[in-house]
Amino acid sequence: MSVLDSEVFQAFSTYAAIVGVKILLMGPLTAYYRFTKGAFANPEDVALKPAEERKKLLVTHPDVERVRRCHQNDLETSVPFLVLGLLFALKEPSLAVALLHFRLFAGSRLVHTVSYVGALPQPCRALSWMVGMGVNFSMAYRLLSSGLML
Amino acid sequence: MSVLDSEVFQAFSTYAAIVGVKILLMGPLTAYYRFTKGAFANPEDVALKPAEERKKLLVTHPDVERVRRCHQNDLETSVPFLVLGLLFALKEPSLAVALLHFRLFAGSRLVHTVSYVGALPQPCRALSWMVGMGVNFSMAYRLLSSGLML
Amino acid sequence: MSVLDSEVFQAFSTYAAIVGVKILLMGPLTAYYRFTKGAFANPEDVALKPAEERKKLLVTHPDVERVRRCHQNDLETSVPFLVLGLLFALKEPSLAVALLHFRLFAGSRLVHTVSYVGALPQPCRALSWMVGMGVNFSMAYRLLSSGLML
Repeated sequence: MSVLDSEVFQAFSTYAAIVGVKILLMGPLTAYYRFTKGAFANPEDVALKPAEERKKLLVTHPDVERVRRCHQNDLETSVPFLVLGLLFALKEPSLAVALLHFRLFAGSRLVHTVSYVGALPQPCRALSWMVGMGVNFSMAYRLLSSGLML
Repeated sequence: MSVLDSEVFQAFSTYAAIVGVKILLMGPLTAYYRFTKGAFANPEDVALKPAEERKKLLVTHPDVERVRRCHQNDLETSVPFLVLGLLFALKEPSLAVALLHFRLFAGSRLVHTVSYVGALPQPCRALSWMVGMGVNFSMAYRLLSSGLML
Repeated sequence: MSVLDSEVFQAFSTYAAIVGVKILLMGPLTAYYRFTKGAFANPEDVALKPAEERKKLLVTHPDVERVRRCHQNDLETSVPFLVLGLLFALKEPSLAVALLHFRLFAGSRLVHTVSYVGALPQPCRALSWMVGMGVNFSMAYRLLSSGLML
């Protein structure tokens, strides 16, 4: 049986889909804030508005920028997870160890998003970010310690 | 025969290369706009210019920022496609279903880039973005519906 | 023996872990610069400071922005490497060819980061970026030339 049919790989597929969808949903969330706060980035996005309103709509808004920073942090943290996690799953860790990594990561990113978008007091956001980073580093360590080929 | 030798995986490889090259080409395109519009981000990039010109070159330019936003949207939309598509291809969908997803995605991103960089009237950009997002969500749904391992 | 157990794939795993960790480390580096330069992005990050200091800390600082641009370039260049390299490794190139690609890429990105964060004179940064882009294009070319399935 191929490693691609293993339970560990099935678990990675599940969590990768969840983390992937989570990243993707930041796009519509940004669009929602742009519309409700009236803060757009492109002239063509406000072309149907009356001419005197347009300029007022081509601004930045703190809430939109906050969602965008949260999205950016997903690209910086969760995208590496998607690749490192795939390679980690192929190293055939035990299912319990793999699930521990994947659950911690997915949970930490949900807490991170809520903390960031909701502007919760620190260290909510900092700690959840560190947990996700720790999972990433742990998976990278396993990749490197399973045999270097430099 | 391994799933990695299947026609579906070969199709994914082809489209991943196309989408990957498309993302990468936004880098040189940004550089092209920076040089033609005279809008740089780093002092060392304009160090060979006469001292009195340098400050005028360290500015933002709307056309450069437009290309950068388009590039950013690729990172947010096409990078998740590269991972979700890989896992989707490993689930052995029928070749027709897989090609439908990959073609729609690649086509939608080409339209998106032309719409964004060319500042075409909305809803060109919005619709092409939605098609790509739809493909991503469809692939994520297949990953999750093929058996959760939480 | 599966291609996933090959020396080429082992080499990719090693370099993917190195490149992945390199991307991830830009996060703590940004945090380090934010604290030492006193330049934060979120009100909740400075909530424990005296009220009259807070506003002065919610600013951008050129050194922080420089690290962030370097991080962004990693997302644009090294993340595509992680996916293209994986697919490339699955095409069973010779170990020598694969290692040439992976070593050149990892080396070029280390030089790129030092050049960017250290603000070394051009063309240090431009050349190292081009080497990394060249490796990416070379791998994409191999994917496409090994058989299109459009």
